[in-house]
Amino acid sequence: MDQVEDFRKEAHKLVNWMADYLANIEQYPVKPSLEPGEVYQALPDQAPEQGEDFSQIFHDFQKIILPGMTHWQHPSFFSYFPANSSFPSLLGEMLTATMGAQCMIWDTSPAAAELEEKVMDWLKPLCGIPSHWAGVIQDTASTATLCAILTAREKASTYQINQKGFGSQTYRLYCSSETHSSIEKAAKIAGIGQENVVKIAVDHNLALLPEELDKAIIQDQEAGRIPLIVVATVGTTGTTALDPVRPIGEICQKHGIFYHIDAAYAGSAAILPEKRAMLDGIELADAYLFNPHKWLFTNFDCTAYFVKEPQALVRTFEILPEYLKTESQGVKNYRDWGIPLGRRFRALKLWFVLRSYGVEGLKAKLRHHVELAASLAKEIDAHPEFEMMAPLILNLVCFRFHPPNLPNEDHESLNQLNEQLLKEINQSGQAYLSHTKIRENYILRVAIGQTHVSHKHVHALWKLILKTQKKLANF
Amino acid sequence: MDQVEDFRKEAHKLVNWMADYLANIEQYPVKPSLEPGEVYQALPDQAPEQGEDFSQIFHDFQKIILPGMTHWQHPSFFSYFPANSSFPSLLGEMLTATMGAQCMIWDTSPAAAELEEKVMDWLKPLCGIPSHWAGVIQDTASTATLCAILTAREKASTYQINQKGFGSQTYRLYCSSETHSSIEKAAKIAGIGQENVVKIAVDHNLALLPEELDKAIIQDQEAGRIPLIVVATVGTTGTTALDPVRPIGEICQKHGIFYHIDAAYAGSAAILPEKRAMLDGIELADAYLFNPHKWLFTNFDCTAYFVKEPQALVRTFEILPEYLKTESQGVKNYRDWGIPLGRRFRALKLWFVLRSYGVEGLKAKLRHHVELAASLAKEIDAHPEFEMMAPLILNLVCFRFHPPNLPNEDHESLNQLNEQLLKEINQSGQAYLSHTKIRENYILRVAIGQTHVSHKHVHALWKLILKTQKKLANF
Repeated sequence: MDQVEDFRKEAHKLVNWMADYLANIEQYPVKPSLEPGEVYQALPDQAPEQGEDFSQIFHDFQKIILPGMTHWQHPSFFSYFPANSSFPSLLGEMLTATMGAQCMIWDTSPAAAELEEKVMDWLKPLCGIPSHWAGVIQDTASTATLCAILTAREKASTYQINQKGFGSQTYRLYCSSETHSSIEKAAKIAGIGQENVVKIAVDHNLALLPEELDKAIIQDQEAGRIPLIVVATVGTTGTTALDPVRPIGEICQKHGIFYHIDAAYAGSAAILPEKRAMLDGIELADAYLFNPHKWLFTNFDCTAYFVKEPQALVRTFEILPEYLKTESQGVKNYRDWGIPLGRRFRALKLWFVLRSYGVEGLKAKLRHHVELAASLAKEIDAHPEFEMMAPLILNLVCFRFHPPNLPNEDHESLNQLNEQLLKEINQSGQAYLSHTKIRENYILRVAIGQTHVSHKHVHALWKLILKTQKKLANF
Repeated sequence: MDQVEDFRKEAHKLVNWMADYLANIEQYPVKPSLEPGEVYQALPDQAPEQGEDFSQIFHDFQKIILPGMTHWQHPSFFSYFPANSSFPSLLGEMLTATMGAQCMIWDTSPAAAELEEKVMDWLKPLCGIPSHWAGVIQDTASTATLCAILTAREKASTYQINQKGFGSQTYRLYCSSETHSSIEKAAKIAGIGQENVVKIAVDHNLALLPEELDKAIIQDQEAGRIPLIVVATVGTTGTTALDPVRPIGEICQKHGIFYHIDAAYAGSAAILPEKRAMLDGIELADAYLFNPHKWLFTNFDCTAYFVKEPQALVRTFEILPEYLKTESQGVKNYRDWGIPLGRRFRALKLWFVLRSYGVEGLKAKLRHHVELAASLAKEIDAHPEFEMMAPLILNLVCFRFHPPNLPNEDHESLNQLNEQLLKEINQSGQAYLSHTKIRENYILRVAIGQTHVSHKHVHALWKLILKTQKKLANF
């Protein structure tokens, strides 16, 4: 297909399919039921020699690929954290793909660079980020956190590790025991080492204990190790626990340590004044991230990364070979604000979302999700055979099935039971949940953040949970 | 816009705009002419409180954003390397955005994981990659090269840097003086340090000199430094020079050094049997990458990364927190094959491209580009006031304007003249070229790889070059 009019014809057909798919998405099982290798084996072993009609390709997409997809935009997708998208975001992605601009530097797409700067500026007052900070879009939180760790490493070594490589420094990174695995992964990549990731104990709400952090830092200093960076999490993956931003910030200030806040999921909720307190003290930090691709209706991938000192970030990454030298002065070349050189035009979809919903529209949707979670938590609290396993902070409900005949101490039976409950719910195709473990307890996670989730879906989920639980209880 | 029927209506309008844009793209200046800050200042300072109609948003896109875009899909985009897309790829992006799946592990989208494995398998015989290697899609070559360096680092340290951080090792990385800046950037990120990137001298064709590499390695070994990895480039950014793959591989084998080949641009040409020789010896390497998003009609981003030992790659990156534990065994979880946890469904667009063009169709397009480049090189060679400045290897023409009255030694005048030539051509909006410097000479680069570039565009470019040169000569 090399003719634009063929494209026009097929794209119109595709739009109808896309709209129908999204209109009827509840007819699909949220999670497919298939054996590993089924899709792989259904596909030929070699690329075709001759070109094929798009109708044949699209037929195979529907027949082979679609039945093997997990439907992340299904309103009963309650697993992990959502990657919620929206209609305006999708329209933005269509334009981004059409223009196919590679936005590595200002010259290679001035409007993309300036829209990115503007949209990041819009997010600052909206999300409680200090007005003098600067923002940039990254692909994922993993990458943005790696940027923070590298910036801390380079500031601490006065940019000498970039220059000469590691010497004999032992740098230490602090985070809570509930912190996302991407922190350890980034510590490995940056050459700091997993053993130098110090996991600080948490309180009964699974939030980092500042006094334990202070102790760990002092202990390291006394042992000649160099405290490098503290990563606080606002909204942990397990239970959306909130590390206390200000007390941690004060400790970082006292010791002169780089302070990064990972609010990948919960950060979107900072648009709600009633939830803004979770970021109190953010001005003490050096870097902050959240993912509009998780809970702000912007297609994956889109991580908003903000820094107090952009010049430190840029100095960490900047390169300037001859073939990238351009005349334009006083512009932002975002290639120097992160790891990859090449960059998609991600700001467009976020701009479409912010304008299409407006701040009020976004707030209304997030509040709705929070209310839905509260209603589910109420059902769970009221039921004698279920229990909430973590405080409800935003819209993630953490609970388990707990038949009265099983004592708290019988972790093994309780865990097996809940593992089975999760398995059967997910296999039903009617909803998709995930799990975590907290203090040896296997816990079910229901994240209520899908763009079009409504009371109907949450109610149906609760019915499904009860039905499955009864079935298990009868065995 | 929260209703699917509104989306359907707007998406159809958008498809017409998209098709019209691509049909009429030659009416736009390839590179916009605007002052830094123009777009930023044309946008309001805050996100709107109330949601706006899509028609208003799209109006602003056309009025404010579009005039500030560099049109990468313009057939007269000859700058950098192209990021060429195609109609089937664009249709693939539309579906990827619609499903909005986050493909971090097999369970979160089995079909996406298996299609990725299959499409990477298709590329192996097509692109001369050993059949027992394994492939994965990365965002960019920068990131894939960083993966190679990290894998080398971990293998060399028996995974102890991941574990404990750097000790007192001094690792050395070897590449030619013509190698892309992303190698140095990756060496910094990995903690190796820019000073440990050893730039090996090149021959008159700008290809790495194997005997110099061997000497440098031996010298480092004698000095107690540890040779870690050699990065060969097949198709340098400056001039598409080809490092000799087999001789370098033999040196790596002799010394037991990890061997990575960066064929970001030129790798696509390996589908042509007559160009395959450039990869002779690839089986001696440990890792290899090329970018279907550069010259294989697949929307940015899409880097194909292949490794001999996938278990070493996975061991470098693997993490397994409780919330990512799933039951499925014997499946590929691509989150462990690279840096970010979250992943878009990139395999779909590549599958659409490979099937829609077929192998024959892709070969025909690439051969056409190579022929167009040869025709331009012929014009340049035949003209008394222009000269080719690097051998024509694929489809990148490197040349300069050289009036007979200026001697070779007068670098300054020649460079100024060619800088001015580039500036005027780019300002015309009729074509967009880039430049590089080779041995102090400022050189114009014409990369002829845009999807729909034809003889007409190359001919028009040559006329434009001549017209601009005459204008400069008259001053």
